Amino acid sequence: MPVLSEAIANLRPLTWRDGPDGGLELLDQTRLPTETVRFVCRGTDTLIEAIQSLRVRGAPAIGCAAAYGVVLAFDEVIACAGANWPPALQQAAERIADARPTAVNLRWAVQRMLAAVETVRHQSPGQVRAALLAEAHAIRDEDAAMCRQIGAHGASLIADGAGVLTHCNAGALATSEFGTALAPIYTAALAGRRVTVFVDETRPLLQGSRLTAWELTQAGIDAVLICDNMAAKVMRERRVDLVITGADRIAANGDTANKIGTYGVAVLARAHGIPFYVAAPSSTFDRAIPTGEAIPIEERDPREIRAGFGRLTAPPDVRCYCPAFDVTPAELIAGIITERGIIRPPYEPGIRAALDRG
Amino acid sequence: MPVLSEAIANLRPLTWRDGPDGGLELLDQTRLPTETVRFVCRGTDTLIEAIQSLRVRGAPAIGCAAAYGVVLAFDEVIACAGANWPPALQQAAERIADARPTAVNLRWAVQRMLAAVETVRHQSPGQVRAALLAEAHAIRDEDAAMCRQIGAHGASLIADGAGVLTHCNAGALATSEFGTALAPIYTAALAGRRVTVFVDETRPLLQGSRLTAWELTQAGIDAVLICDNMAAKVMRERRVDLVITGADRIAANGDTANKIGTYGVAVLARAHGIPFYVAAPSSTFDRAIPTGEAIPIEERDPREIRAGFGRLTAPPDVRCYCPAFDVTPAELIAGIITERGIIRPPYEPGIRAALDRG
Repeated sequence: MPVLSEAIANLRPLTWRDGPDGGLELLDQTRLPTETVRFVCRGTDTLIEAIQSLRVRGAPAIGCAAAYGVVLAFDEVIACAGANWPPALQQAAERIADARPTAVNLRWAVQRMLAAVETVRHQSPGQVRAALLAEAHAIRDEDAAMCRQIGAHGASLIADGAGVLTHCNAGALATSEFGTALAPIYTAALAGRRVTVFVDETRPLLQGSRLTAWELTQAGIDAVLICDNMAAKVMRERRVDLVITGADRIAANGDTANKIGTYGVAVLARAHGIPFYVAAPSSTFDRAIPTGEAIPIEERDPREIRAGFGRLTAPPDVRCYCPAFDVTPAELIAGIITERGIIRPPYEPGIRAALDRG
Repeated sequence: MPVLSEAIANLRPLTWRDGPDGGLELLDQTRLPTETVRFVCRGTDTLIEAIQSLRVRGAPAIGCAAAYGVVLAFDEVIACAGANWPPALQQAAERIADARPTAVNLRWAVQRMLAAVETVRHQSPGQVRAALLAEAHAIRDEDAAMCRQIGAHGASLIADGAGVLTHCNAGALATSEFGTALAPIYTAALAGRRVTVFVDETRPLLQGSRLTAWELTQAGIDAVLICDNMAAKVMRERRVDLVITGADRIAANGDTANKIGTYGVAVLARAHGIPFYVAAPSSTFDRAIPTGEAIPIEERDPREIRAGFGRLTAPPDVRCYCPAFDVTPAELIAGIITERGIIRPPYEPGIRAALDRG
């Protein structure tokens, strides 16, 4: 199916462009779903602004963007500082790593780029730049390969004609390509299987309707958008065979933090006898955290609920509770789809074995 | 607590005003929560427009508005048709009854008003008008008494310090006063008990954030607005002691149709060991319908999901599934709070006994 694979490739949130007018081309995700705007970042300021204002978002995609950002930074510092570039690059890299506070992949990618510099720092500027660009490409390629592997493992769960429900966006737009939660769906579709995806709109920020519905329809996958509170009815009507969501952090026992609403979907899935899966790269596991109880949950600005889309839809003074994430206990999870295979309960030994194998 | 009872009285969605500048004063619910606008309907055209554009909504409130509408119609036809008023009144009443297709109370109230006319039609116009106004007041007073009784029965379920979760708006704004699902909360608060109400925003039309959050904060009740997908987390955190929602129609076996999302809340409540109650007047029971399977469910315009906040937040061409209601099976319902008492399972004999008693 060349058309589908081309459509999925077109969803890439970032692409490096060589040449004099080159730089890091980003798909501006704040303009979706109404406008598809791509623009080229040629300097670190533009890139940092893009990360901070969520033009590029999703931990893996941010990591890749930051890696290419170090290449952009190198071009800037070599122009200004000449042979004295190393401390200036270090400084610029720090600024990129600080662009957002919580995305682990961001700092990880920047540090990996700086480590790559160490091995070539006494070579010519051209050689250093080539090494940096090669490392950024490697980070992106590894991410893409990881997504493909998650897709290959997860696709085994999706039969022809299946209905899959997902929450939030853990798709191509959040990674270098292909996604995590959506990767099994794309892989099944590439294998010629028909899949219908029920997309929770995902209040308050509507990543489901703005991003997931957009990328699935762009790829030609049958998507049905619903409000979050319709998931139970859709499940009762037997339209859903399995649920797949992404993960923000997974504790050593398998408890999984993800976008607010994920836990409710998992409870509903259990009540309807529908298996609930999490898809995430092994870097999402935090073995230092024994259970979900210890995962800190960010609380967001109540205005996201009261006036989410530019219009006040609640009394301005009403109290709100606005957690950004919730924790799904391991016992509600049928399996965790990673690039190393599907981890099944009991999770503690399964997670240990999968990570130690890596 | 005179302050609270006065605040609740101020929530009345409709008030008859006597005198030359009189008529039916309505609270324009389409302007909430940002503006509190009251206006007086002095003719049937204005009243019908108000019903059709949801300035007054909620089946009981629409019934009361329609009853007063027949008084307005009488004033109009007596001015034009003189002694030949009866067929003109019949015609105007028909127009009021047709203002919305599905609200059962609307036609019921109009027919009751026309029946009241029959007994006095040969008296003077002044006497006919007095009889009509008395009947409209009676319809409103009976509705208010019914809400008070639901409140009295339901308040027994709410302990001091309780957390109650509700979905959509079955409050004072939907009835002549006091509400159905919110009546037990107001009654408990009037008795001096502290209550915290978790208000589902209720996508797609946000009746929870626009109306329920508004009326509770106006009444000084502690309200916490949440997105629908946060209910599971709030329940898991043991903040909710019981759930109370309204009902659009209840089958002979207790299966209950209500605003979309109610069924999911009931499943979540069961999973967390939280009792789920329905509050509704006995007129909501439809004994001709044996089970919820037979209740027809309206599907709404997908634009309510795609552009619900006045801005396109999803791809314009994405398929949507937009049911307006869902059915909660009787086995998930801990009790049905009616003006005649709380009906407990098994529902078939309980409903039969309660209705036959009436």
